[in-house]
Amino acid sequence: MNQTHYDVIIIGAGAAGLTAALFLKRSSINCCIIEGGAPGGQMLKSPLIENYPGVSKISGIDLAKNMLNQVNELKVDYVAAEVQSIKIEDNIKNVITDKGTLGAENIIIATGRVPRTFDFLNPTFEGKGISYCAICDGPLYKNKDVVVIGQGDSAVEAVLYLSSLAKSVTLICKDDYLKAKDMYQDHLKYLDNLNILYKTNVIDFKEENGIVVGVETNKGIINSDGCFIFIGHTPASEVFSNLNITNKDGYIETDNNMQTQVRGVYAIGDVRCKKVFQLTTAVGDATTAAVNIIKDLSK
Amino acid sequence: MNQTHYDVIIIGAGAAGLTAALFLKRSSINCCIIEGGAPGGQMLKSPLIENYPGVSKISGIDLAKNMLNQVNELKVDYVAAEVQSIKIEDNIKNVITDKGTLGAENIIIATGRVPRTFDFLNPTFEGKGISYCAICDGPLYKNKDVVVIGQGDSAVEAVLYLSSLAKSVTLICKDDYLKAKDMYQDHLKYLDNLNILYKTNVIDFKEENGIVVGVETNKGIINSDGCFIFIGHTPASEVFSNLNITNKDGYIETDNNMQTQVRGVYAIGDVRCKKVFQLTTAVGDATTAAVNIIKDLSK
Repeated sequence: MNQTHYDVIIIGAGAAGLTAALFLKRSSINCCIIEGGAPGGQMLKSPLIENYPGVSKISGIDLAKNMLNQVNELKVDYVAAEVQSIKIEDNIKNVITDKGTLGAENIIIATGRVPRTFDFLNPTFEGKGISYCAICDGPLYKNKDVVVIGQGDSAVEAVLYLSSLAKSVTLICKDDYLKAKDMYQDHLKYLDNLNILYKTNVIDFKEENGIVVGVETNKGIINSDGCFIFIGHTPASEVFSNLNITNKDGYIETDNNMQTQVRGVYAIGDVRCKKVFQLTTAVGDATTAAVNIIKDLSK
Repeated sequence: MNQTHYDVIIIGAGAAGLTAALFLKRSSINCCIIEGGAPGGQMLKSPLIENYPGVSKISGIDLAKNMLNQVNELKVDYVAAEVQSIKIEDNIKNVITDKGTLGAENIIIATGRVPRTFDFLNPTFEGKGISYCAICDGPLYKNKDVVVIGQGDSAVEAVLYLSSLAKSVTLICKDDYLKAKDMYQDHLKYLDNLNILYKTNVIDFKEENGIVVGVETNKGIINSDGCFIFIGHTPASEVFSNLNITNKDGYIETDNNMQTQVRGVYAIGDVRCKKVFQLTTAVGDATTAAVNIIKDLSK
């Protein structure tokens, strides 16, 4: 780390963080990105992205590479480090990492969220019969047999959506009741291609030729062309807990400019409290935050 | 027009409208796009787009073509017609066009906005020395001499921003005062590379080899590597005036789901009342509206 002070520090190098860097650095704002893992975020887990406008079909890895190259061409400082905590002193946000401390007037939190999953599920099966996003991957399973695992709003929303596309939907629910809003549950009774398995535990996944083709449960194996897991998400916001900017589920609350209640602290992408978690909304969030900061710094 | 009833009618085929179609049709929602002009919207006017994440450098025409191809591959109905008015009867939105009437439960208004300009300025100069977006095109004029025409908030915001990049900024103001907020104007006095010309009228533009290189005024010619025009925008919302969804400037007001106060009527992209008007925010808006409609229709 040569430079230790920036106008803006972006934490996280997924689609949101990279887009913020693109807009800021093009405007000659002194910024850096800090990322502990590989750049690309959730994109790295999508073998095929079909819903990014202007790019017909692309692997998530390639789209991530393209975004990273754009940022690298602009010579954005990239710090490979784990953020440990934030300390604010006299309006300066000090970002403490395992490689040292950086400071900035503004920070943009773009750390995303991680879908909860099963310990015994090999992560490499994502996109190979396993999905965590019905809107993204549902269309790949038209007229196929799909399984949804979960019992909350997201699971039932996915069932409602997938039932209009898939041949059949099996919902695996570990308790003898669903936890989703009544309003959502009410609609389930109109679906004639839905089978709900209550009090059913997932024990393992059945794999053939590198693809998940079934879900093993205490009630037997359920064949599955695509299995959608909705047992919650963990927003990556723990290290920001001292800032009091998260809601009870750990998502960071912002205004329409993406600013939190702490002046100069922004949150964008999947770590932000919102309703639609897509690549396109992440790049939109990022642009809104970046343009606000650009205007603010040019005053 | 074979089909006359849809689940969703999208009005406008710019980045926002095309993205909405992409998300809706991938989810097998019965939708169409109505567009009176060429598909692509404001993209068609950008010779070079450098701030669309994942696509390094691309002409606006090519990016528009790519988005259109994606929608065409999904076989979205495309209706080349001018929308004349909307009539709502029993929750059905009837879209009356010069080629006939179409109906839908939901409409998405994605008609964009048009920057006001000078009658005597040839529109083909956009991107050739003329720009209507400082954030988009400002970085192309680093250390150059730029001109800003206007006197309101947008003009002064552009001056503040461009002064940090350009060698010099000349602000042409037709009255002997600016109309921008005092807060913005206060910052102008700190700029040492700004020259403000009051009571100055633009008479013509000076062109060399197909590029605008100067602005002709009643006080002489001002040389210009890039001339940014901020004399207002006209949101394309006139035909929706009977719905009472626009603010005093003609922008359509929505909630965070992009829905207007009229249930089933959404607005996305540059026609919507918001602060950041970029390609990325347009595709974000579109996704939010589409996903909300998908969830709504799957109930």
